[in-house]
Amino acid sequence: MCQDDLRAITTVVAGPAFERDRLWLNGAEEDVPSNKRVRAVLREVRARARDRLAPDGTVLVPAAELRKWRVHIVSRNTFPTAAGLASSAAGYAALVHTLADVFSVREAFPGELSTIARQGSGSACRSLDGGLVEWRMGARVDGRDSLGAPVAAPGHWPELRLLIAVVSDAKKDTGSTDGMARAVATSTLLRHRAAAVVPERLERAKAAFLARDFGAFAEAAMADSNQFHATCLDTFPPVFYMNDVSRRIVGLVHAVNAAAGATVAGYTFDAGPNAVLLTTAARAPALLAVLRAHFPPPAASDGGAPWLSGAGAAALLEEAGAALAALPPALACAPGREQPGAVRHVYATSVGDGPRVLPASEALADAEGVPLASAAAEGVDKGL
Amino acid sequence: MCQDDLRAITTVVAGPAFERDRLWLNGAEEDVPSNKRVRAVLREVRARARDRLAPDGTVLVPAAELRKWRVHIVSRNTFPTAAGLASSAAGYAALVHTLADVFSVREAFPGELSTIARQGSGSACRSLDGGLVEWRMGARVDGRDSLGAPVAAPGHWPELRLLIAVVSDAKKDTGSTDGMARAVATSTLLRHRAAAVVPERLERAKAAFLARDFGAFAEAAMADSNQFHATCLDTFPPVFYMNDVSRRIVGLVHAVNAAAGATVAGYTFDAGPNAVLLTTAARAPALLAVLRAHFPPPAASDGGAPWLSGAGAAALLEEAGAALAALPPALACAPGREQPGAVRHVYATSVGDGPRVLPASEALADAEGVPLASAAAEGVDKGL
Repeated sequence: MCQDDLRAITTVVAGPAFERDRLWLNGAEEDVPSNKRVRAVLREVRARARDRLAPDGTVLVPAAELRKWRVHIVSRNTFPTAAGLASSAAGYAALVHTLADVFSVREAFPGELSTIARQGSGSACRSLDGGLVEWRMGARVDGRDSLGAPVAAPGHWPELRLLIAVVSDAKKDTGSTDGMARAVATSTLLRHRAAAVVPERLERAKAAFLARDFGAFAEAAMADSNQFHATCLDTFPPVFYMNDVSRRIVGLVHAVNAAAGATVAGYTFDAGPNAVLLTTAARAPALLAVLRAHFPPPAASDGGAPWLSGAGAAALLEEAGAALAALPPALACAPGREQPGAVRHVYATSVGDGPRVLPASEALADAEGVPLASAAAEGVDKGL
Repeated sequence: MCQDDLRAITTVVAGPAFERDRLWLNGAEEDVPSNKRVRAVLREVRARARDRLAPDGTVLVPAAELRKWRVHIVSRNTFPTAAGLASSAAGYAALVHTLADVFSVREAFPGELSTIARQGSGSACRSLDGGLVEWRMGARVDGRDSLGAPVAAPGHWPELRLLIAVVSDAKKDTGSTDGMARAVATSTLLRHRAAAVVPERLERAKAAFLARDFGAFAEAAMADSNQFHATCLDTFPPVFYMNDVSRRIVGLVHAVNAAAGATVAGYTFDAGPNAVLLTTAARAPALLAVLRAHFPPPAASDGGAPWLSGAGAAALLEEAGAALAALPPALACAPGREQPGAVRHVYATSVGDGPRVLPASEALADAEGVPLASAAAEGVDKGL
């Protein structure tokens, strides 16, 4: 997703004077020693530290010294955490990218940093590049070849639009990593899916993306999302991520496609109830109108945060308003069936462009590594 | 399920004077010519008509004559129709059983009537016997060997209890036969399930039933229910039968088992949101108490129909009341999380005993084939 619209922002301050590694996430300090994933990422990056050089090539800090520096990490998301919106993927990608800069790491092979990010959160390995990125499973026991590999450049398909309907930002009952471990242990369908279904479908999705074939891409995404959640249900005890609102959104997308006589919208659900709706720039207003007809924004008394955010939100909302007035009966909401506030927020976004280095004015910590007020989660995360 | 608690009641009146086959279902006349399934059942039974004999063996109506008789069929369920409670299975089993009597059909091989019932509703082939019945897939192209075969007699496991939580009696969006056809056409997981998972699991479930091993039986039932719904989700577009209340019930059953440190409760969901909870006579009150704590009965103003019905309902409800007072904290409902009325009704029942011939006083039609007032659905179906 585009970093203009949803992002994890991470500031790392390192120095010889720090006594220990510390981490602040969305304004609250987390305990690093008990966080295996953060420790793994720090260990792997430090092991690859190189001499820190000045622009003229003189050594500022030798690698052996640099490796001893402790870090203060300050990170926040501009979108809900642990709600199936890949906050940990974005967060670990930002962390590894920033740490690699701090410790002067240069990749020994393309994707080496991706293999480190993967140890923080599996899907983080896909977030170190922009555009469409494939997580290659790899075959090596040491995991060196399980990494994110770019498939299409960020600008390859500018018309593709994502509307992310936030159904709930409550923390998940089951973390995605726990749920996946239980699925691997107990789901017989998951094994079949991994061996017999995913490889071919992945090739189809990649080819469709490269050809900018929206129908084929959306159909692969929908079928794969459904099958992922099917294997969650086949887990014992079962893992449920989608809820009744998620399911109603699925029904609406199929109704939109039936009314259009073609696949003009799609969906994919990650490990949570939120819908990532796929469409094109031309179709986005009409799709948003359908969503809005069935799930009107919550009452303004809820804080008045805008229901839609992202690049061009105001224009999109205006176009959606016009589309809403012209909604065909098959897509209109039956009287009394509206669920105001069930979709708490919508992010309008497009394909992302990978990690960015931000100007110093956006740093989340001062030069001493003390978190600034801006390090807290944005109001939109809590007040939706 | 036991016919004392949930049943389909069917009266067939036949005669040479009737001009056409007619059908009344739950008090409303249905159109027979447009009902392929009813027509198939009538055709198959008529094709097997034999001479109607008096007790002394004299021919009352020759088969050739009998075959021309038209029928008036009057049927009703004492439980919600088309809500995933196998109303069509019960209905077609009752219909075939009754028609076979009317047309003097004798089975040419064990299960022949079952193969006819199957043409009305697949699972009806299992409802012509009591106890545990297996639907054998069969291998023949003509379907002659796809039928219900008894596994255990009705009285084999008297301690087994079923609590059927009616989550909604709204008609399903997708009929189970339509949904299954779409699943067969589009779900890759379904093919794998049928070929690689179901045969072994079915043997395990049968062995557990025969050994009265509750834990093993309930675990097989839960895993298979989850996998069935997983394949529904893997269908395109996906078919959803379970809803948020269903999922919460699943969570409660797993919490009950975790608290007990053993599998003392199970669940299975058919093509609808209603839960069929499995337990034993000894554990039924405590399980009902948990259900009641989270899903209190709807307010009495809803009509005042009893929340629980079935054999021994009053005693069970009293025992559940005592268990409710002693609910461990892990199973109690968090304040404000109760969903009154979300479980509209509970049927307490046990393993069924197969078709019964009822006394003439319970007939749903008079001798002229005119439906009586008793042919309407019971108040409990609508007024829950």
